[in-house]
Amino acid sequence: MAKIVSLVTGGAGFIGSHVVKHCLALGHEVVVLDDLSGGFEDHIPAGAIFVQGSVSDEVMVTSLFEQYKFTYVYHLAAYAAEGLSHFIRRFNYNNNLIGSINLINESVKHKVKCFVFTSSIAVYGAGQLPMREEMTPMPEDPYGVSKYAVELDLKAAHEMFGLDYIVFRPHNVYGENQNIGDKYRNVIGIFMNQIMQGLPLTIFGDGEQTRAFSYIDDVAIPIAHSVNTPAAYNEVFNIGADKPYTVNELAKVVGGVFGVTPDIKYLAARNEVMHAYSDHSKAHRVFGEGTGISLQEGIERMGEWAKVVGARKSKEFGEIEIYEKLPQGWERKIDQPVPATAG
Amino acid sequence: MAKIVSLVTGGAGFIGSHVVKHCLALGHEVVVLDDLSGGFEDHIPAGAIFVQGSVSDEVMVTSLFEQYKFTYVYHLAAYAAEGLSHFIRRFNYNNNLIGSINLINESVKHKVKCFVFTSSIAVYGAGQLPMREEMTPMPEDPYGVSKYAVELDLKAAHEMFGLDYIVFRPHNVYGENQNIGDKYRNVIGIFMNQIMQGLPLTIFGDGEQTRAFSYIDDVAIPIAHSVNTPAAYNEVFNIGADKPYTVNELAKVVGGVFGVTPDIKYLAARNEVMHAYSDHSKAHRVFGEGTGISLQEGIERMGEWAKVVGARKSKEFGEIEIYEKLPQGWERKIDQPVPATAG
Repeated sequence: MAKIVSLVTGGAGFIGSHVVKHCLALGHEVVVLDDLSGGFEDHIPAGAIFVQGSVSDEVMVTSLFEQYKFTYVYHLAAYAAEGLSHFIRRFNYNNNLIGSINLINESVKHKVKCFVFTSSIAVYGAGQLPMREEMTPMPEDPYGVSKYAVELDLKAAHEMFGLDYIVFRPHNVYGENQNIGDKYRNVIGIFMNQIMQGLPLTIFGDGEQTRAFSYIDDVAIPIAHSVNTPAAYNEVFNIGADKPYTVNELAKVVGGVFGVTPDIKYLAARNEVMHAYSDHSKAHRVFGEGTGISLQEGIERMGEWAKVVGARKSKEFGEIEIYEKLPQGWERKIDQPVPATAG
Repeated sequence: MAKIVSLVTGGAGFIGSHVVKHCLALGHEVVVLDDLSGGFEDHIPAGAIFVQGSVSDEVMVTSLFEQYKFTYVYHLAAYAAEGLSHFIRRFNYNNNLIGSINLINESVKHKVKCFVFTSSIAVYGAGQLPMREEMTPMPEDPYGVSKYAVELDLKAAHEMFGLDYIVFRPHNVYGENQNIGDKYRNVIGIFMNQIMQGLPLTIFGDGEQTRAFSYIDDVAIPIAHSVNTPAAYNEVFNIGADKPYTVNELAKVVGGVFGVTPDIKYLAARNEVMHAYSDHSKAHRVFGEGTGISLQEGIERMGEWAKVVGARKSKEFGEIEIYEKLPQGWERKIDQPVPATAG
């Protein structure tokens, strides 16, 4: 059997590092491309080749495709801060769209067998629930727009050049290796980080917004295995948990796992969808049922890991483009640099 | 009354130069930003301030907004070669999307009163006919994807920051000042250029594809005046002619205006929609009826102009990213630079 070589972009990141692990288990040779802006080198599973660089670096991407003859591309690198994307439009499109286009160009030229793209439920916007793949995407923030543009571009590349692709739209994923030091995204990591620092949990609005928090194995395993599933080719899949919880309920579960009754600090509501949950019947049909890991169990697993890793200081995003209406707690005094020991 | 200052990007280009003319007639002070990649400095109407530069040059755009307090932004700069966009994906998104985002960022920051964006019927894809604004866009090429992404981003910017916008989706526009030296786009200009050089007219496929060719006045006048039409704010409009013609019929009309029976050279069909025409009832309702100029009359007007300008040599696009499946006549030998006197 010919050697299978897979590129995993964002492979030092949260979902990416899990996809790398499962690709290695499938016998792939794996090359990780990651700029470590959100990921950590020590999250890359042993056995993968690590190249530090950004998907938006066209020269780097081109030379990587020249050097390795990639069979598959798993594209997970992204700056996935949906709420922040309004304020970092140019950064968002450069990173999430132009970076993807660099990979699509090279995948066409080098006849990659399948391009697996991790999109987002952000493409749906505030439509009807549950979100279903056959619905028409109506993204409402630059992050969702960039993801949807890549989906459309992949479809065009398939029709023009025959590049096969698989699109996944995961739903609020959590688990081990998540960057719990990122204050702009991933509420579960934020909660754990706050609890471990003895801080109150911060919630935008009244906390009654709902999300179907999805344990990493229910997302990363189907992504890694999808290239071996012909029925998945050139299709779009929602992926993740079915059951939505309110953010208030989530706060209780996380508090319970850490043995505390958390203080909650309610902040001004931000511009976000109130409720979100997806229909996953298509994914179940094609990839089988998930692991069945409950929110309680998933949070326990992630909590065990987080307690070992410990609290991390939150990094500030350094290149805010628009300060107007930036949500509470995300501001930085423009005339005042972030102190090195901020916290 | 306060002075009205308008930025017209692409104001040395075809549609842009006409919009500048009509904005000046409305009493606006007009600043043109154009990199002259497709436009000509001598097309810019007297009285406008010309700044040579690209919308994708973030530093340039930022300083321009600092220097002038723009009341309105008319964003027409684009590399509008739909068919070529498959082969120049990165260039397309950098130019058409990132460039637009630079303008949107600054328009939010400087509280521009209205952002008028020239999108394209390319956003519809090969959907039902006639194309209507309430249909769901399904763009099928990178050019259409980039235009639709900007439309969605403008909507998000309106909802988050209150930036008012008007989107126009023009349909195959032709007329005086069109770049007839561009071999990748604008069939009417290509035909005139070919006739004046004594060359056969080249048609992709059998020439039975239809388009509703639209005379410039029916497009540029509503665009320029739209900022004075409150009912147009935060709305999307198809704009252009109602009646579709086949490309074969068009060849006869253009030949007739130049007094020749053209030879036609049929090339391999390219990946394009077979039929396209739009419903314009929304535009007529809001902006009134058009000029009523027929295809024959419009072609005569443009022909008079083209005979004065004369034939131009076609410029090659120098940065093709993917050569595979590039349509016939668009290829350039990679190992052979274009001779300076190519023709």
